[in-house]
Amino acid sequence: MTEDPPQIECLVCTSCRRGLAVSEGEERPGSVLRRRLAAMTLEGVRVTGVECLSNCDHGCTLALRGPGRWTYVYGRLDETADLAAIGDGIARYRATTDGLVPWRERPEHFRKNCIARIPPLEIA
Amino acid sequence: MTEDPPQIECLVCTSCRRGLAVSEGEERPGSVLRRRLAAMTLEGVRVTGVECLSNCDHGCTLALRGPGRWTYVYGRLDETADLAAIGDGIARYRATTDGLVPWRERPEHFRKNCIARIPPLEIA
Repeated sequence: MTEDPPQIECLVCTSCRRGLAVSEGEERPGSVLRRRLAAMTLEGVRVTGVECLSNCDHGCTLALRGPGRWTYVYGRLDETADLAAIGDGIARYRATTDGLVPWRERPEHFRKNCIARIPPLEIA
Repeated sequence: MTEDPPQIECLVCTSCRRGLAVSEGEERPGSVLRRRLAAMTLEGVRVTGVECLSNCDHGCTLALRGPGRWTYVYGRLDETADLAAIGDGIARYRATTDGLVPWRERPEHFRKNCIARIPPLEIA
């Protein structure tokens, strides 16, 4: 019996307008992204909405993190066109033990739109 | 007796060339930044070098983090001109309990060059 990889978190910026003029009362692109990612029920992934990940000029934005892992922030995400690539990138991240997916193995959008990464607490 | 604020970490990307052509063997701007920040011996701050924070197009880069705090990533730092502002911004971050320094109270460079922020583990 092999053990499943541990649960990871996908933090999604729900306040992001993705540079669009969003009417009052209309759902923001970041909120749509969070809702759609949650609806994908990715195995071992907790999807959490966050108000502002401070990457407003390059949204929509998500961050992947988990115990003992590097945290990765990805930007310029489209809540419709990029869903499949995001799901793939998250699964690859979860399949590692330290969050380090080799660059060539990341979905193209993740390769081109990594905003920042932060090492696990253990390195400091 | 009042208790000192807890220790925080300042992670500095040491591999950053800040867009410059750095000769082999020459110290990189990111490494200079780490060295100079460490030499400032900021109270309650541990300065840690990290190889690549993946903000290469907008370096030099540092990340501030601590238990129960929001993590903030700042970019476009100059290892000479921005040292005083960085020291000020770090002190203000440390003086909070949650890492949230009101926008108006941040040094101008921090206001204009926040790359991303990530919530503390506790929110998820």
